[in-house]
Amino acid sequence: MVDMWRKHFVLAENMLEMECTNLTPEVVLKTSGHVDRFTDLMVKDPVTSECFRADKLLEDAIDDLLEKNPTLDAETREEHLRVQRQADAYSPEELDKLLLKYECKGPSGEAYGPSFPFNLMFKTSIGPEGTSVGYLRPETAQGLFVNFRRLLDLNAQKMPFAAAQIGLGFRNEIAPRSGLLRVREFCMGEIEHFVNPDDKSHPNFSSVAEKELVLFGRDDQLGTGKTKTLKIGEAVKGGLVNNETLGYFMARTQLYMEKIGMDPERLRFRQHLATEMAHYAADCWDLEIKSSYGWVECVGHADRACYDLDVHAKATNTSMVATVKYDTPKEIEVAKLKFDRKKIGMVFKKDARTVSGALDKLAESWKDFEPIAKALEADGKVTVDGFEVTKDMVSWEQSTKKVHELKFTPSVIEPSFGMGRILYSLLEHSFYIRENDEQRCVMKFKPQVAPQKCAVLPISSSPEFNAIVDGIAASLMEYDLATRVDKSTAALGRRYARSDEVGVPFAVTVDFDTLKDDSVTIRERDSMVQVRLPKSEVPHVIYDIIHNRTSWDEVTSKYPVVQVDDGEGGGAAAPAAPKEAAKTKVVSNSRGSFTRPA
Amino acid sequence: MVDMWRKHFVLAENMLEMECTNLTPEVVLKTSGHVDRFTDLMVKDPVTSECFRADKLLEDAIDDLLEKNPTLDAETREEHLRVQRQADAYSPEELDKLLLKYECKGPSGEAYGPSFPFNLMFKTSIGPEGTSVGYLRPETAQGLFVNFRRLLDLNAQKMPFAAAQIGLGFRNEIAPRSGLLRVREFCMGEIEHFVNPDDKSHPNFSSVAEKELVLFGRDDQLGTGKTKTLKIGEAVKGGLVNNETLGYFMARTQLYMEKIGMDPERLRFRQHLATEMAHYAADCWDLEIKSSYGWVECVGHADRACYDLDVHAKATNTSMVATVKYDTPKEIEVAKLKFDRKKIGMVFKKDARTVSGALDKLAESWKDFEPIAKALEADGKVTVDGFEVTKDMVSWEQSTKKVHELKFTPSVIEPSFGMGRILYSLLEHSFYIRENDEQRCVMKFKPQVAPQKCAVLPISSSPEFNAIVDGIAASLMEYDLATRVDKSTAALGRRYARSDEVGVPFAVTVDFDTLKDDSVTIRERDSMVQVRLPKSEVPHVIYDIIHNRTSWDEVTSKYPVVQVDDGEGGGAAAPAAPKEAAKTKVVSNSRGSFTRPA
Repeated sequence: MVDMWRKHFVLAENMLEMECTNLTPEVVLKTSGHVDRFTDLMVKDPVTSECFRADKLLEDAIDDLLEKNPTLDAETREEHLRVQRQADAYSPEELDKLLLKYECKGPSGEAYGPSFPFNLMFKTSIGPEGTSVGYLRPETAQGLFVNFRRLLDLNAQKMPFAAAQIGLGFRNEIAPRSGLLRVREFCMGEIEHFVNPDDKSHPNFSSVAEKELVLFGRDDQLGTGKTKTLKIGEAVKGGLVNNETLGYFMARTQLYMEKIGMDPERLRFRQHLATEMAHYAADCWDLEIKSSYGWVECVGHADRACYDLDVHAKATNTSMVATVKYDTPKEIEVAKLKFDRKKIGMVFKKDARTVSGALDKLAESWKDFEPIAKALEADGKVTVDGFEVTKDMVSWEQSTKKVHELKFTPSVIEPSFGMGRILYSLLEHSFYIRENDEQRCVMKFKPQVAPQKCAVLPISSSPEFNAIVDGIAASLMEYDLATRVDKSTAALGRRYARSDEVGVPFAVTVDFDTLKDDSVTIRERDSMVQVRLPKSEVPHVIYDIIHNRTSWDEVTSKYPVVQVDDGEGGGAAAPAAPKEAAKTKVVSNSRGSFTRPA
Repeated sequence: MVDMWRKHFVLAENMLEMECTNLTPEVVLKTSGHVDRFTDLMVKDPVTSECFRADKLLEDAIDDLLEKNPTLDAETREEHLRVQRQADAYSPEELDKLLLKYECKGPSGEAYGPSFPFNLMFKTSIGPEGTSVGYLRPETAQGLFVNFRRLLDLNAQKMPFAAAQIGLGFRNEIAPRSGLLRVREFCMGEIEHFVNPDDKSHPNFSSVAEKELVLFGRDDQLGTGKTKTLKIGEAVKGGLVNNETLGYFMARTQLYMEKIGMDPERLRFRQHLATEMAHYAADCWDLEIKSSYGWVECVGHADRACYDLDVHAKATNTSMVATVKYDTPKEIEVAKLKFDRKKIGMVFKKDARTVSGALDKLAESWKDFEPIAKALEADGKVTVDGFEVTKDMVSWEQSTKKVHELKFTPSVIEPSFGMGRILYSLLEHSFYIRENDEQRCVMKFKPQVAPQKCAVLPISSSPEFNAIVDGIAASLMEYDLATRVDKSTAALGRRYARSDEVGVPFAVTVDFDTLKDDSVTIRERDSMVQVRLPKSEVPHVIYDIIHNRTSWDEVTSKYPVVQVDDGEGGGAAAPAAPKEAAKTKVVSNSRGSFTRPA
């Protein structure tokens, strides 16, 4: 799954890839705001001192309430759900009131104490002196931000570009639970796409513009509670999704999910509420996946504006700007200033240079300088950076200037994937029970995703069969196909079922025919259809399916489909209309018996 | 490199693979001994309080001494080197004496204070209560040990088997330095091979027995200082390497190193000195790789006996044993005991059961019980587990018993790879400068290892060429081949050089012929030989080379080799004896000029 992520995003789009450290010096996370603000609201039971996450208590309380009152009218119900959806966006005071309102009580039976912020980062000490504080990174992104200049160099100064990182994040969750959904360390895949804030178009947007996504916009969350299905091109054009680059990544994420085998019916994009979003963010959409735990945020898509590079540039006094050369030079409106240096020096003394510098900066664009000019004209004075400038210190004229390039602090658009949550959701979406047979569970992993690609099963456990099985397994390994050999004496049907249970897409069976003519069968997991082919062709066929060079449909038309009674019940039928080219043999190979009619 | 490691070890040998957490509860590492003993010896400058690693100071001091005294006789020199090789095996007292002897002084000019142990683990606090201590794992192995029962189940109880893990290790190094060689967090690949302690043979040993390794045994380190080159089969047979499984992995490691392109001349296996090795270990061999930093340990191969599973079994009161079924039941000699329960009860009271249990355990093998029997016969009493047992408490007779299976705590043989150190060494081993041209540096990464597989270069930057280049790059991406496009206006020779510098093995050039007949050239990095072929065949050819389905030699005999003057100097010649089948065209494509004689 991670491998496909790398191919779908990093390789296919020629992104840079970087691996930064997990241990992070305090100053980096102080700058990013994590030391001060990366918190969850926690409450304590006043008697037992047990700790709980306040927003989760509220969510659970509302679940309970709705369950206990199934007859509530739709409007009241939706009112409660609205509160629930905003649970992690409330202030401590609001949460405390709501916990009281919903009568949340601790294990001791008493009401909880007031909620307070708990920092989710793991703290440690770096180096032998014990004086240098470090944290385990709560996200991988900061490593890419502090390396922005290096990344821009690697990309030969070209903009826009993206850098990706796959690695661990660590969060000291107050209440880890729900399997892989809320854990204290987890694999993330993060992309930082750096772009000109004034031009967030994406060169490949047209390739996804027609893709339909299920969107749950801010207004709908606070209003109808209903999603809309829209083409991403329309959603961007209509302003629901802020810009092309953000929309492009949302569509690419949807395509990735479909590629790895997620059920499209259980995917939606939920927009962050204004209260959820950081003040600097332009727009955020979470891909939510539905599982037995409800809708769970699995991928964030955030337009973080220039916030990240700005704060690190300021803290390190390092320029983090990019440059775009114009095809033809542009004329821009500026102010040409003339200072009375003597006057300024007399008034501001050591601050003289700061004042003239501030005015010079404003003069770079007439739009910025115009209010200053107007104030000086009208009042004879104006305050600039805290200094009172008077009209006799500076004169100006409006002018134009030719510029050849644009300098800017890039905006960051960040798709951020929680790999563990995606994996867990994929397990749920892949699970099914065979029709008419509750004992037979199957994981329908796509061949590309399945951890094991092929099972190899001998019909008998005699040494003759074992040698052939080992040979086939070795030839599959040579093609880097992870193989599962099952030589146990269980019935063949039972062994197919075991292999289905762990999602192996193909099973190669060595039977009595193999001894005669070196042919074997390949069984496809979901259709249970089998074809017969020379054993030497097995690795190539499976390799080609996995690398999208052929399909199972092509395989069933190239090789004879065989009807096999292996104790699998009625399911093992050949396709309804077998291809004309395919000869159909019927082979019964259950429990070693062997007949081949005609 | 990591991908090839997984294929060479995990996939090819059908190992289990697991990903455990980095954060580890204290109790696990207390049990393993890390909390008490995972330390380096540290000294402080008495004036500045600066911290240093004591063994490294000693090593550096000996380097200095040898450099300043180049005329020392060979024997004295070897004496110093012997001390240096043992630097990290001395006790604090021994090290203090040696630091004095070699006149090591701190930055202040004063002698260092006494050396003391410094624990290398990063400590943190897990959970909101702040009461649960955790550490970042210093190695990945412990996760596999505590999951041993689960792994054994997954392997359907079959022994022997191996489990592997790729992930991070963290060590709070006193003095991180030397690039990737000594860092505080690093990628490791670890294998735990679980095996019957009484049978450490390996089923595939014969496949590597003839492989020659450079071995630096314990005796040679303390004696001649010289290595021996031996077939691993001989080394195991002669007893230098403890057993087949350990030898098997050493040979497999050598093969891996050669596969990724390491220089075999700069590899050796160094055996641990008795003083370096943990008391429980049976044998340890480090693969050392030579670089500009000297011989650096990059892979450990340790036979850790049953230590790891034993300590965790004891601490968790969990059985961590495996079972091997005998083909035919075995008769074993046991003692049949008869207790005087009353007597035992009266004497030992609440401990009565402990005492009889201990005797029962010994009685399972006559060999174990015999000394007890003899002592009771001779002295009328014997001490068992601290209790004095007298002859009137127990009677016995020697007997035989049929057993159908053997129960044992598995021994662990552990190859442990420092991926960062291997990567760094590979960079050094891959670097060379073209003959007669000091400006042209090349990284000769094997195609399988190279991060970018192919460069695509247009001879001109006109839109016509750009479109073709983008098309070729896209077709390479479709085969998951990481591609480097260089459309810059630099001379072609300069762009080849840039691509060589980052080790791209192949460069596809789009020239004026491409416009006419859709053919392009592929240039191989090291030979600088070029072939001409239809552009549609490029992805397939490069894909096949990388997946070992063809070789560059085969490619040069299939397609015409072309002689190109692209400003690369004299180097770009066709092979000395071009294959007969290959037509040779001469194409000059430097700076856009274009001629094709005959």
